[in-house]
Amino acid sequence: MIEYRNLRIALLGAGSVGSQVARLLLEHGDELAARVGAGLELIGVAVRDVDAPRDTSIPRHLLTTDAATLIQSADVVIELMGGIEPAREYILLAINSGADVVTGNKALLATHGPELFDAAEQVGAQLYYEAAAGGAIPIIRPLRDSLAGDRVNRVMGIVNGTTNFILDRMDVEGDTFENALAIATELGYAEADPTADVEGYDAAQKAAILASLAFHTAVPVEAVHREGMTSVTAAQVVAAQKAGYVVKLLAICERLTDPETGVEGVVARVHPALISRRHPLAAVHDAKNAVFVQAEAAGDLMFYGAGAGGVETASAVLGDLVSAARRHVAGGPGVGESTHANLPILGIGAVSTRYQLTLIVADQPGVLAQIAGVFSEHGVSVEALQQTVQPAAPSVLAAAGAPGQASEPLTATLVIVTHEASDAALSATVAAVSSHDAVVRVESVLRVEGDTP
Amino acid sequence: MIEYRNLRIALLGAGSVGSQVARLLLEHGDELAARVGAGLELIGVAVRDVDAPRDTSIPRHLLTTDAATLIQSADVVIELMGGIEPAREYILLAINSGADVVTGNKALLATHGPELFDAAEQVGAQLYYEAAAGGAIPIIRPLRDSLAGDRVNRVMGIVNGTTNFILDRMDVEGDTFENALAIATELGYAEADPTADVEGYDAAQKAAILASLAFHTAVPVEAVHREGMTSVTAAQVVAAQKAGYVVKLLAICERLTDPETGVEGVVARVHPALISRRHPLAAVHDAKNAVFVQAEAAGDLMFYGAGAGGVETASAVLGDLVSAARRHVAGGPGVGESTHANLPILGIGAVSTRYQLTLIVADQPGVLAQIAGVFSEHGVSVEALQQTVQPAAPSVLAAAGAPGQASEPLTATLVIVTHEASDAALSATVAAVSSHDAVVRVESVLRVEGDTP
Repeated sequence: MIEYRNLRIALLGAGSVGSQVARLLLEHGDELAARVGAGLELIGVAVRDVDAPRDTSIPRHLLTTDAATLIQSADVVIELMGGIEPAREYILLAINSGADVVTGNKALLATHGPELFDAAEQVGAQLYYEAAAGGAIPIIRPLRDSLAGDRVNRVMGIVNGTTNFILDRMDVEGDTFENALAIATELGYAEADPTADVEGYDAAQKAAILASLAFHTAVPVEAVHREGMTSVTAAQVVAAQKAGYVVKLLAICERLTDPETGVEGVVARVHPALISRRHPLAAVHDAKNAVFVQAEAAGDLMFYGAGAGGVETASAVLGDLVSAARRHVAGGPGVGESTHANLPILGIGAVSTRYQLTLIVADQPGVLAQIAGVFSEHGVSVEALQQTVQPAAPSVLAAAGAPGQASEPLTATLVIVTHEASDAALSATVAAVSSHDAVVRVESVLRVEGDTP
Repeated sequence: MIEYRNLRIALLGAGSVGSQVARLLLEHGDELAARVGAGLELIGVAVRDVDAPRDTSIPRHLLTTDAATLIQSADVVIELMGGIEPAREYILLAINSGADVVTGNKALLATHGPELFDAAEQVGAQLYYEAAAGGAIPIIRPLRDSLAGDRVNRVMGIVNGTTNFILDRMDVEGDTFENALAIATELGYAEADPTADVEGYDAAQKAAILASLAFHTAVPVEAVHREGMTSVTAAQVVAAQKAGYVVKLLAICERLTDPETGVEGVVARVHPALISRRHPLAAVHDAKNAVFVQAEAAGDLMFYGAGAGGVETASAVLGDLVSAARRHVAGGPGVGESTHANLPILGIGAVSTRYQLTLIVADQPGVLAQIAGVFSEHGVSVEALQQTVQPAAPSVLAAAGAPGQASEPLTATLVIVTHEASDAALSATVAAVSSHDAVVRVESVLRVEGDTP
């Protein structure tokens, strides 16, 4: 057997993931070396401030602020700084210095992925990113390799732990969004500024990465339709329970044919949705993540685990490091990104989905028929409709000063679940219903994904 | 870019998986070629009898009975004949002819794996086997690559669809084992001779493959402790439900330290067990499979999907084919099997687990204390104990001809769940309890895995 020198590993960033990568690499170096067939030497850790207080076991002499010099002496560069710059610049430097790169930087990949993959392909370098979508969950290799002989039709994921924790609390404990968010913040699941999580930006970045892989098509994050989950109410969660559903923030990437143009393309979207409590994704609790994949031959698959966390994500990073190192030892180019399909990216309007609408309407004869008429005018057919007459609330009666008075306008609650229709037709229907005379207000609009419970 | 000739693919076997592989390869050849960067040409399909009736779309001119000649003209050989011989011989021929091999043959890998991997390593050929454990579920690459930088401590899988279908029917519909088996046979989930499934032989082969991968140690199938599930009764399933458990046939592979010798090693075992209904594996219904993995850094992961089926398994085979073909195009050796850890393989006695015992005992003073004494003598501590006095059954009374007679010996049912103890200590305790004077009979003994509900 040929003798190899140690492989030189450079780490950029010593945050929650980076410090765990360093620790595990130093502690389990011998075990990993045996798996690779070569030593793995951590030659340095680039940080912004060598003297900053940090709770890590990284030996002081490994710390440096000179990332560029470190990168140029490395065989494999692990980028865990986050953000766009200078991460992008450093990764390009690593690639052009002949190093392979491991990154967990979803923001960078979702915005500058094609540029980085092209640069790597030109020099025959590899870019690994198992940690960028799904944290510790192995989802990149299954999509890229295991399913490479199949045809993925749909990827539906719970890819943000913070929002799943919040929605699970709302479902299991009956919390409001605000309460659940406060607890998530207290437990460290949510950042001080939770916008990236609760508004779906984080999930949209992951959706872009998953869609690109699943459909062999570069999908930029700007093309992902994104709705946050801050407007999900406790009442919606309870109503969902009663109907056999649970509310989840889903990242959905699908291959479909635009009904208007007949063009086959890809849509990626992030929004809260109802799914049946019998769906495997419904059993994903706490801050856990899972990605449900539907492929033509393989059928339904699901990948479940920790979507975030320092040590958990470090597992994915080290798996990539071993792959990169094995390739260095074995030689030869690795697997490039596959974007050969290059499918057009379609808008949300092309998606076929179902809606659940909750309307407060005037309780008078003919309203049901009128509302049903609005749906049928827009070509949307109704799967289920439930009407409950609202007893006039005591506070309303008290304010009116005349309990039981015949002229008190009574209202009814109408819960309508539609059959599948284009998102465009459904949103037009909602707009028309909202402005209908008999409709007091639209209480809730949620998409419904998957089977009826 | 260098121009490559078409890669020549030979298929051995045209059964339920083989015929689907041929169909998908012929139908989606162009799409797969784009992913590989080279054409994939199915040059022949070796079968025992060219004229046998078969429901496939394989063109007649591709069929041949001369497997050896076919193998020697191929770049990649896909072996889907099953059985030990001549599959073993053909795979060795393929390897020595310079071809890469894709196989779904779990029986062969679980018995002759090391011989085949060694042969492949000597000539730099690759052996792919994603379809051999878990059917369509991508589990081989996650264990071999994604978790290569982590330390797997435990793999717990539902890896046999037939038995999961039967146990799920017993749980959800209240069927007996016999009824559920009859339905599984009718629906094609069980073979005419279900021994390989219900006695755990199939699961044991998969356990051997998963344990080998997870612990970088060759684990032969003979080293897997195996108990079937034919003795699981409807009463046990109902009792499990009441206690918040579900009965599943589990394949468990774990790294542990033998309490007697202090040696760290690997144990693989297959047996029915109780798991909490809150465990992710409890939500695996019908004939679905799932593999739950616990790793030091990644934490808990689960991989879920179809564990069998012609077209589903074909997906895994084609994924391997694309990997093999990409390697042919890229050149260079691929990833070899990693058995560097070479841990000792320990017996079931080294396992630490919990037992649930159901005993029928004489309802007389002091029995509880005596039984508890037997447990404590064996160093097994009791986590929970529930006693129900058995009303004398009407038939017994009628037979005795003296309803309510004081001398009628009353019995009590005792359900005991132990704390964790060595399997050796637990089975010794069960033996001692069985022969205790006050014990009328041992109704049920089941291991308990994972957390208490």
